[in-house]
Amino acid sequence: MTDPDTLTRLEAMIARRRSAAPDISYVARLHAAGLPLMARKLGEEAVEAVVAALSGSDAELTGEAADLLFHLLVVLGARDIPLAEVLAELDRREGTSGLAEKAARTRP
Amino acid sequence: MTDPDTLTRLEAMIARRRSAAPDISYVARLHAAGLPLMARKLGEEAVEAVVAALSGSDAELTGEAADLLFHLLVVLGARDIPLAEVLAELDRREGTSGLAEKAARTRP
Amino acid sequence: MTDPDTLTRLEAMIARRRSAAPDISYVARLHAAGLPLMARKLGEEAVEAVVAALSGSDAELTGEAADLLFHLLVVLGARDIPLAEVLAELDRREGTSGLAEKAARTRP
Amino acid sequence: MTDPDTLTRLEAMIARRRSAAPDISYVARLHAAGLPLMARKLGEEAVEAVVAALSGSDAELTGEAADLLFHLLVVLGARDIPLAEVLAELDRREGTSGLAEKAARTRP
Repeated sequence: MTDPDTLTRLEAMIARRRSAAPDISYVARLHAAGLPLMARKLGEEAVEAVVAALSGSDAELTGEAADLLFHLLVVLGARDIPLAEVLAELDRREGTSGLAEKAARTRP
Repeated sequence: MTDPDTLTRLEAMIARRRSAAPDISYVARLHAAGLPLMARKLGEEAVEAVVAALSGSDAELTGEAADLLFHLLVVLGARDIPLAEVLAELDRREGTSGLAEKAARTRP
Repeated sequence: MTDPDTLTRLEAMIARRRSAAPDISYVARLHAAGLPLMARKLGEEAVEAVVAALSGSDAELTGEAADLLFHLLVVLGARDIPLAEVLAELDRREGTSGLAEKAARTRP
Repeated sequence: MTDPDTLTRLEAMIARRRSAAPDISYVARLHAAGLPLMARKLGEEAVEAVVAALSGSDAELTGEAADLLFHLLVVLGARDIPLAEVLAELDRREGTSGLAEKAARTRP
């Protein structure tokens, strides 16, 4: 079963761990290292997801997608941007009807 | 207010649009172009999120994070991997205690 | 035949174009937009090279590799780092013997 | 002083190392692991170069640019595409006059 609250709970966990001791928390280590390292990890996980999408197993892509979501939440947290704002932006873009998509997206 | 169902609804919308006419749906155009283009868009949106994290405004990073989530769902859909499996993987990794994090993650 | 001077000539051309009018030169437009856009283009071209490496034709990978080198030179130029320094770093790392490689690289 | 032959020599070194024992050569280990890992390393090094361009020192960007060039040569070698072909593509695009650039590039 899907748990739609997973990302919200993960976001809160990451916020709590930011102030933990770096030697016990991966999140605290990332925060201690600074935003450039957090952004780099986000980008590297995305590259791994791209490669897994094209040549990995389902389990590999699932794992890389999880890593990507995790590090996206870390970066958003470091910039003090709530996940809720990103979801609200998605809601706003897609609207409630099929017509909204066409208007909102002209790429590629 | 946060709507924790946004991603689940977006996933369903993407699944419906896959079979739409490419001239009315961005999702249909991506699917018609194939997995390499979908993976490329995922990677490009991640790069934009990395750059926005380091030098963009809050609104820019919010927008890039939304684009990244959207294209991650497109890639997962194309590989028939439910978002629920990715969330379940995140639940499994993080566990319910602080100790779980340390055990599950040894990087960087 | 290989022309080993292509990159050096391209680097000089990019340096000259930086001060051209943005409406006639792509390089001038990139410089006018600033380092974040230049870095983003570098990252996007790299993603395209990764995807072409895994699922593109030889011609596609050749083209993406050319785009990647071009935008790497643009970024280096914007940071005032001569290509010669990057090549000197490569020379330093690889050394002149096979043993050097092992010592210099412990990854992945 | 610039040594324009660095990349050509590096390309030849990488070709020789492909058949070395994986326990002594990093290049041989990459080749043994396969193209997906090589493509992933290329993408990861590009992400590191993007981050270094925006927030790293000159020495860091120089080092990341060197890593990026190295792994681009590894990927090209694995696909049997000579660096000379990539350089020829760059020569072809840029032409010999300033006007050529405008015609060849319409982005971003």
